[in-house]
Amino acid sequence: MKNTFGSSVTLTLFGESHGPEIGAVLDGLAPGIPVDEARIAHQLSLRRPVGRISTSRVEPDPFRIVSGLFEGKTTGTPLCILIPNTNTRSADYQRELPRPGHADYTAECKYHGFADYRGGGHFSGRLTAPLVAAGAILLSALEAKGICIGTHILQLENVRDRAFGELAEDISALRERVFPVLSPEAASSMQAAIEVAAGEGDSVGGILESAVIGLPEGVGEPWFDTVEGLLAHALFSIPAVKGVEFGAGFGFAAMRGSEANDPFCVREGRILTATNHNGGVNGGITNGMPVLFRTAVKPTPSIFKEQTSVDLGTGKEATLSLRGRHDPAILHRARVVVDSIAALVLCDLLALRFGTDYFLPSGNA
Amino acid sequence: MKNTFGSSVTLTLFGESHGPEIGAVLDGLAPGIPVDEARIAHQLSLRRPVGRISTSRVEPDPFRIVSGLFEGKTTGTPLCILIPNTNTRSADYQRELPRPGHADYTAECKYHGFADYRGGGHFSGRLTAPLVAAGAILLSALEAKGICIGTHILQLENVRDRAFGELAEDISALRERVFPVLSPEAASSMQAAIEVAAGEGDSVGGILESAVIGLPEGVGEPWFDTVEGLLAHALFSIPAVKGVEFGAGFGFAAMRGSEANDPFCVREGRILTATNHNGGVNGGITNGMPVLFRTAVKPTPSIFKEQTSVDLGTGKEATLSLRGRHDPAILHRARVVVDSIAALVLCDLLALRFGTDYFLPSGNA
Amino acid sequence: MKNTFGSSVTLTLFGESHGPEIGAVLDGLAPGIPVDEARIAHQLSLRRPVGRISTSRVEPDPFRIVSGLFEGKTTGTPLCILIPNTNTRSADYQRELPRPGHADYTAECKYHGFADYRGGGHFSGRLTAPLVAAGAILLSALEAKGICIGTHILQLENVRDRAFGELAEDISALRERVFPVLSPEAASSMQAAIEVAAGEGDSVGGILESAVIGLPEGVGEPWFDTVEGLLAHALFSIPAVKGVEFGAGFGFAAMRGSEANDPFCVREGRILTATNHNGGVNGGITNGMPVLFRTAVKPTPSIFKEQTSVDLGTGKEATLSLRGRHDPAILHRARVVVDSIAALVLCDLLALRFGTDYFLPSGNA
Amino acid sequence: MKNTFGSSVTLTLFGESHGPEIGAVLDGLAPGIPVDEARIAHQLSLRRPVGRISTSRVEPDPFRIVSGLFEGKTTGTPLCILIPNTNTRSADYQRELPRPGHADYTAECKYHGFADYRGGGHFSGRLTAPLVAAGAILLSALEAKGICIGTHILQLENVRDRAFGELAEDISALRERVFPVLSPEAASSMQAAIEVAAGEGDSVGGILESAVIGLPEGVGEPWFDTVEGLLAHALFSIPAVKGVEFGAGFGFAAMRGSEANDPFCVREGRILTATNHNGGVNGGITNGMPVLFRTAVKPTPSIFKEQTSVDLGTGKEATLSLRGRHDPAILHRARVVVDSIAALVLCDLLALRFGTDYFLPSGNA
Repeated sequence: MKNTFGSSVTLTLFGESHGPEIGAVLDGLAPGIPVDEARIAHQLSLRRPVGRISTSRVEPDPFRIVSGLFEGKTTGTPLCILIPNTNTRSADYQRELPRPGHADYTAECKYHGFADYRGGGHFSGRLTAPLVAAGAILLSALEAKGICIGTHILQLENVRDRAFGELAEDISALRERVFPVLSPEAASSMQAAIEVAAGEGDSVGGILESAVIGLPEGVGEPWFDTVEGLLAHALFSIPAVKGVEFGAGFGFAAMRGSEANDPFCVREGRILTATNHNGGVNGGITNGMPVLFRTAVKPTPSIFKEQTSVDLGTGKEATLSLRGRHDPAILHRARVVVDSIAALVLCDLLALRFGTDYFLPSGNA
Repeated sequence: MKNTFGSSVTLTLFGESHGPEIGAVLDGLAPGIPVDEARIAHQLSLRRPVGRISTSRVEPDPFRIVSGLFEGKTTGTPLCILIPNTNTRSADYQRELPRPGHADYTAECKYHGFADYRGGGHFSGRLTAPLVAAGAILLSALEAKGICIGTHILQLENVRDRAFGELAEDISALRERVFPVLSPEAASSMQAAIEVAAGEGDSVGGILESAVIGLPEGVGEPWFDTVEGLLAHALFSIPAVKGVEFGAGFGFAAMRGSEANDPFCVREGRILTATNHNGGVNGGITNGMPVLFRTAVKPTPSIFKEQTSVDLGTGKEATLSLRGRHDPAILHRARVVVDSIAALVLCDLLALRFGTDYFLPSGNA
Repeated sequence: MKNTFGSSVTLTLFGESHGPEIGAVLDGLAPGIPVDEARIAHQLSLRRPVGRISTSRVEPDPFRIVSGLFEGKTTGTPLCILIPNTNTRSADYQRELPRPGHADYTAECKYHGFADYRGGGHFSGRLTAPLVAAGAILLSALEAKGICIGTHILQLENVRDRAFGELAEDISALRERVFPVLSPEAASSMQAAIEVAAGEGDSVGGILESAVIGLPEGVGEPWFDTVEGLLAHALFSIPAVKGVEFGAGFGFAAMRGSEANDPFCVREGRILTATNHNGGVNGGITNGMPVLFRTAVKPTPSIFKEQTSVDLGTGKEATLSLRGRHDPAILHRARVVVDSIAALVLCDLLALRFGTDYFLPSGNA
Repeated sequence: MKNTFGSSVTLTLFGESHGPEIGAVLDGLAPGIPVDEARIAHQLSLRRPVGRISTSRVEPDPFRIVSGLFEGKTTGTPLCILIPNTNTRSADYQRELPRPGHADYTAECKYHGFADYRGGGHFSGRLTAPLVAAGAILLSALEAKGICIGTHILQLENVRDRAFGELAEDISALRERVFPVLSPEAASSMQAAIEVAAGEGDSVGGILESAVIGLPEGVGEPWFDTVEGLLAHALFSIPAVKGVEFGAGFGFAAMRGSEANDPFCVREGRILTATNHNGGVNGGITNGMPVLFRTAVKPTPSIFKEQTSVDLGTGKEATLSLRGRHDPAILHRARVVVDSIAALVLCDLLALRFGTDYFLPSGNA
């Protein structure tokens, strides 16, 4: 399935960076869920570029929900969100020279020269705007069931944030932060690092770390549709994501089984694990502990430094000097995308496990 | 979809560690592909435990293909491979005390106590045997199209192998190696490390690194069904896999865009990239360069050191001392599983892109 | 998958009869296909109500394509078509009394009272407008490959049209006919029958008969994804469709094998069958003969005669007298919906069989 | 998806008529469901040929369940059923002359001559044996929830059975009948008609009629995954099925809306409909009334009368005289296949709607 993800709760994305409108169709979500347009606007504002550390293409994202919404609540039928593209400068883009690290060249290969190349077309990070708008509804639905998701920038170039501490608090604090970092010192250092890179016409990458609390145990499948596999599948759609790990992840490589295994314990009558190196998932299935994962984000490929490309017309190597408006870092903007993607995967898994009425507000069944 | 993966070429797994037979149904593969039973046996032998560094449960894996095979070739209809379980010691397992780091507890949660718990049941690494058998057919089909996959142990505990060099040569060399490492010194050190851990009743983890050469460009989708997303989805099914990264992966975090971007170049008339930090994929779509990925494997959770668990009968914490036969390391055995999973994902993507006759031996269309 | 159909070429429908906009996302179609907006407008005009035999709700259907279209051709990425709802009279509808034969009551059951009930909401035949718009593009893509689809009203109440004769000619003639009947006499009698029923505040049903010519042989699957099964699956989505048959269909019941079997023959070097009782499909797979199917359409449930319903508020039986604008027959309008649905299923099957570039205009691969 | 059907509860079929074993993998069914092997054997016996009205290929069908079963109950993991093929006479089949009305020729087209042609290979009705075995488990799971399915031969050639009367009684009576007809006179006449046709080396077709009682309302989707669409999709897989209709089906063509609409009524506090012309489904969704459908079955294509075929080797027309063992009628054997397919579709729909624990025996959640 191409631009659609999910089995029971699904999301379909459409649009191009410089087309008239982009959008998403969210299907399969229970009826009766209040749609808080202020929350959607807030989530979109967190995705929007900010100040010197982002592109100067600023868009107010005036979304419209044209279906699936009635009297302020989801109807249970497909909900389509549309966002017009207004602030586009197509002249900044040219078909002939594909940008290194971008999808320009692979889009040519796949679509035989018919893709809308302007601004990255369908591959543009711009497509994450309707995803974030839909994600806001999904995040609300999860929160109504006591499930919360939060993401911070764990690492940006060589600066690291502090580790997650008390999860409920940290997740709550991140919700309002435009630059999603737990330690104020790390935030300043990271922003400084972005400005240095931007000043050199360059860009930076980093690692996002996410936590999900409140998930019931017993969700996921042993083979193929593991919680990890589904989350990773969807997360790799986010432009620039090149790695996903759960719990100790790649850190497991240097560990012994005796350190890595999470001993079971009983706390207030519930079976938990004393540590959480496995990130809340065993055998592909949630164990009731927080689900923890990290996402590697490569440096934004659109940089202003001169690069070598190939002219697709002549077939000869050529020098590329990018103009236009580009982000020197996207980590702070990508985090709401990570939260939204995670919300989609989890809503789908929960609806598959517990039925399509799982998210129906209580008292309506 | 639960124990089935793929859209056009699909694999369905069934069986439990101590049930009568385990198996796989491979569907959607083109007709006319020669099925080399010696190759299947060879791949199974690479998955089988070896010497002191593996479990002492040795099984000859006498597979039977009961459908989809006619006169030595695939028919195009579902091919079912069965492998009997013979060498089982069910008495080594007990329902009450879930093993830390294992799926025992999550299986209880999900299946409400009805799962076959013996030997990990359906969650057992044993299920990878039919997957590897099916994978042997898929790998042959890919090779007939010039596409080769190879995996080595990049890291085991703190020992690292050399990086991939000339890929065609390295992949070819790995094909025959029981302990899949490129540098002989690394091989000895790794095996020594396994023996040390085993001697302490403990286990080790590590990182597998894989390369795919010969893939055509233009394969994969921009959103959701990216090459990275599909590979990761399937790879996370392998028991103990907790991280997947492509190209520079988590290493991108500390890079600048100017280092990370792969400049385009022209070599013998083909458009390539001078470096391959992106691991052969841009925007979710292959660019014609080798696809490179790494898989983090946690230490085998079955260790002989005493651990803390919870008695599911009494609900009280209890001490667990494992008996039975368990691997102190599974990296060397897991690599054919990684190759097989990757073969499945790629065959599926290629058949979706180029049609179900893509793998039909030439001259038969 | 809820409001999405297809594997390789997919269509997602969204919208409600009285919401701001309805639409469809068409995904997976090859790039480079010319999008003829006049053809879309023509197909929409065939779906639009005409004269005394239809509802008086007339809508110009000013569609907008907001994605997946660049320089007049498909890009290969999702194509979203939007159609605003303008001419709505919501006051004609009331939640409390579900209309017999309609989805009003089942919508209440499924969506727990949160569905947009106005005008049938998401269940409205209005949703077929974007489906027909997308179908116009699919039909053009098929025609470029020599595959044509045509549908006529075989029976309306007790009036029957003549059987299909020379298929290419009949299909071509139907393309321009607003009232899709092969025999002019049948057309007059059918329209008269509709007017009689309308005059009595009643409605009529009938049978649509369709033919597809030019399909290659070898398309479809032996189990589950048979050509018949996929077509039927999609056709039953059309509101009011209650039966689907292929070839002789239910007529097979009274036949002997010796009559029913289609003898093979050789015509101009091609293997064909002398008769086509099987409607071009054997074992779920096309045999190169025209695919023939018939669709039973029940009388429009919205009638002006008094009916018995149940007040969902009080739980008591109550008399329902419909107001509003309703079709006394939808057969003539439904035929482009049947053609569009068939085009979707066939494009999907062909892309699965021959790859996603199957519909790429020649010379662009 | 090729030989797999379903989303939450799925069935995968594999095998060929003359291969070593055929089988099915049933996945996604809840754990804890008692597996009654006697019921499976009974259902298989109803599918087995009987006396003079069937093929003389009689097979005891000694099935084996090799996975997904533990201590007599489903585990929740994939359940694989295997049935060996023992009584095969491959010499009766020849590749060169495709049988009219059969899949022999389309199999050649699709599989390029590599299919196992013996006995129809993967297209053989023999594949319905594992489907019926799996269906027995599904039917039991449904019955435990109060949902029962029954099918009778409504018409065979020109003989008609009486219509369904009191459904619970009729369904119960059919369960034990080898020749599934409600009226004893019709049964005799039908069997006589089969013998007449068989005596002439010919075969007969007919219509099966099915009823499902006890289904909850609110199951199914408005577009695409309608109850009708999903049932039809799966039913068309059954070899020889060429038509599917719901409620009045094709009979709606001659009805007026005022006759066709089912007025709502209140009976013992429940909202029902006074008639059931819509067969229990409105807008694709169950309304709580019995689901009623009819399946058109064409005459068995394997007849002993001489027929015209084409020699695929020489490309010339040739006369075909079939030998071997073939059924003059399959309606009586097909009914358990219809019941099994319907059970699969309904279990899938119910698990999607109410979650994967829907069929978990009460008291185990």
